[in-house]
Amino acid sequence: MASDDELAELLARALDAVETLAVARTGRVSAGSPGRAARRVAETDLSRARTPRHAISGLTRLLTESGVRTNHRRHFGWMNPRPHPAAAVADLLVSFANPQLATRALSPGPVEVERRLVSELAARMGLGERAGGSFTGGGSEANATALVCALVRGVPGFAEGGLAGAKPPVVYLSEEGHDSVEKLARAHGLGRRHVRWLPTDARRLSVPALARAIDEDRAADRAPTLVVSTAGTTNFGAIDPLAEVAALCAEQKIWHHVDAAWGGMAALSARTRPLLAGVELADSVSLDPHKGLGAPLGTGVFLVRDAAVLEEAFDVQNDYGPGSSAPDPFARSLAWSRRFVGARLWLPLLQEGWPGLAARVERMFALTAPLRHEVERAGFTLLGPEATLPVVCFRDPDRADDAQGAIARFVEQSGEAWIARTRVDGRPALRACVCSHDTDPSDVEALGALLARARRES
Amino acid sequence: MASDDELAELLARALDAVETLAVARTGRVSAGSPGRAARRVAETDLSRARTPRHAISGLTRLLTESGVRTNHRRHFGWMNPRPHPAAAVADLLVSFANPQLATRALSPGPVEVERRLVSELAARMGLGERAGGSFTGGGSEANATALVCALVRGVPGFAEGGLAGAKPPVVYLSEEGHDSVEKLARAHGLGRRHVRWLPTDARRLSVPALARAIDEDRAADRAPTLVVSTAGTTNFGAIDPLAEVAALCAEQKIWHHVDAAWGGMAALSARTRPLLAGVELADSVSLDPHKGLGAPLGTGVFLVRDAAVLEEAFDVQNDYGPGSSAPDPFARSLAWSRRFVGARLWLPLLQEGWPGLAARVERMFALTAPLRHEVERAGFTLLGPEATLPVVCFRDPDRADDAQGAIARFVEQSGEAWIARTRVDGRPALRACVCSHDTDPSDVEALGALLARARRES
Repeated sequence: MASDDELAELLARALDAVETLAVARTGRVSAGSPGRAARRVAETDLSRARTPRHAISGLTRLLTESGVRTNHRRHFGWMNPRPHPAAAVADLLVSFANPQLATRALSPGPVEVERRLVSELAARMGLGERAGGSFTGGGSEANATALVCALVRGVPGFAEGGLAGAKPPVVYLSEEGHDSVEKLARAHGLGRRHVRWLPTDARRLSVPALARAIDEDRAADRAPTLVVSTAGTTNFGAIDPLAEVAALCAEQKIWHHVDAAWGGMAALSARTRPLLAGVELADSVSLDPHKGLGAPLGTGVFLVRDAAVLEEAFDVQNDYGPGSSAPDPFARSLAWSRRFVGARLWLPLLQEGWPGLAARVERMFALTAPLRHEVERAGFTLLGPEATLPVVCFRDPDRADDAQGAIARFVEQSGEAWIARTRVDGRPALRACVCSHDTDPSDVEALGALLARARRES
Repeated sequence: MASDDELAELLARALDAVETLAVARTGRVSAGSPGRAARRVAETDLSRARTPRHAISGLTRLLTESGVRTNHRRHFGWMNPRPHPAAAVADLLVSFANPQLATRALSPGPVEVERRLVSELAARMGLGERAGGSFTGGGSEANATALVCALVRGVPGFAEGGLAGAKPPVVYLSEEGHDSVEKLARAHGLGRRHVRWLPTDARRLSVPALARAIDEDRAADRAPTLVVSTAGTTNFGAIDPLAEVAALCAEQKIWHHVDAAWGGMAALSARTRPLLAGVELADSVSLDPHKGLGAPLGTGVFLVRDAAVLEEAFDVQNDYGPGSSAPDPFARSLAWSRRFVGARLWLPLLQEGWPGLAARVERMFALTAPLRHEVERAGFTLLGPEATLPVVCFRDPDRADDAQGAIARFVEQSGEAWIARTRVDGRPALRACVCSHDTDPSDVEALGALLARARRES
């Protein structure tokens, strides 16, 4: 048992460590070799006790010296931000208090906080009076929830009899959509063969191609069940034509889910909300506060137009759960025992209010054009359409496909920034994305200068 | 953007809050009314900014005044512990650093830490040389992973063609098993009708009944696919006859998963490991460090005998993921982007070593007999078999079924402890469970005295 003195010591050391971890404005964006990290972990003796100071310095070293510092303002890689400090502090408090969100009776306040946040986000999407949803552990769980809702509503007898004996349900998304949808379709019994990767028009889902694919599947006695539109594709930040897809889905009676994991943050500001035009017609929407809203990883949200479907999909009778008139969270989500994930949005909101968070989102969107400009000015060829989100894919026109990676390597080894490698139309390419609320125009300019050096010197 | 001063202020206030939240040795175990909590949340104005001090005090009040304090040492309710302080601090550091565990290249150190922890836990279970697994967001995700593995290995063409057209796969568990298994079976396309709740013998799965059910399903052209044994049932802490179930599953070529969400902690100590005899024969095992090992909620582990199945089940080709020779976490789990959940076990381990954590587990198990003794001494009738885990179900022999709840209400309203209501064989009953590493014999004695008062005074 930790005594109070030990607790105080632990917390004091944690504060020092946070100061090391949190600032991340200077210092290298990536550090350490994978091999050395692996050796250090392998050599750690887990048979003996250590002081809090030694334990914490071990974890802190691991977090600062191993790999890419996603929380750095010059991390232009994947959409993992430097978390809002209040979101990280919320995690600390939640971890100490450890409220159980399976049932309303155990944690009425936290359950109500999550209900209110879900309701406000659904309202910003425009999902109507009967909307609801839940916090999830991330985008995959949110998309899985959408898939189960679509199956419950679209496949006769699904909850009772399952898929054996049913017509094969089919899922549709654009070829720029997220691969996790295929993984989920397999895990939930649809099979890889029943996932349709459709062509795009300016990197946005082609509605005529979608209509044709649906017709073909119906003709072959398969059951079109779910269309996943993407609002913010990984490579181009493109947003599918949500209103047109919604119209087709309504006509065809197919569930329309909008995967707004990344682009959903646009709903926070009146200036950016028009980018999501048509999302108000969706059956369900997912967004990841751990992408654009500054929550730490593991923070997803699922929103649904008709909350009643959640109980059809997830309610289970049991002997030991306390009864309640309002539906309990465990009866409305894939999860059972649940962490108070919503605190990661609630505490920043208490501190900043919706207008403060909206201003952060606007600052990120405002970097979209400067990012394109700087990359082009450094001599690279831009790929894809004008993006709505602050991301750009590009190539060095003066080098072969297999030499493009050297640019990313140069940037990484400089320690001054980090960009990702990707593939566009099957060919190697480079990708830079603004991830952090703290990234500002000077960081984007610094990236441009670094990329220009990479062209000359790598 | 938070300035450094604001960050320092935020952290200082967080420390004060943690001291309020973390101790939980005194004070009421439950507080506040659900109605008041809901009103307070509803009345919070989210349109304006607040100082860090005000924001944090708002969240802290919510966490302390609303509902059941699961982190209190006299919380004898569901298996949610007071988290180990080092586990909570690990959450803080991880939330600030925010490593992305989808790929090894981004976070080699954290990925290696999780790999080592999974490997050591698998070794303690005895799963053999080819074992692997992953951290999950909890027990449901771990059990879902087991179900997908069983389908991949048991249903021909599952990954390619899905379940439509297949024989209906069937899942088996005892009637004392966890209801989340039914929820998962529905979500993954099996349907409620293909979940078999089997009778028990001393609250442990009846192997003859299991064998009969399998035969019946085969005769009806259904496909027995997964048996879920429970190691630590919710009501009685019973552990199914793992070795006998394993033998039957091997003979019948059915995947055997052991849901050791709660009882899995026994693997940490040589003294308690014999309770899990036979687990070494399982195909997969799940355990929840957020139950017995002092992690905060949202910490699950999935272990599998043959790690190769994970890639069969979850690997997806994509254009933008960085390539790697070792398999990446995103290709081996339901999740994609992943939080560094394993840090919640790693930091306590660094501080205490395996022997220190084992001693904590032993102290919890040592309270099993005293808990039974105290409840019986207070005049209650014990239900169910002698438990292996520190839990007991009971009734007041002197009052009707519908008056048993008054005992729990008296305990709750005293603020001195908290016990759960449950149902046993369809009738209302009471349930007390040791949840916290900090609960000691004096707390169990205090519960006994309180229960005796409840009999007299309620």
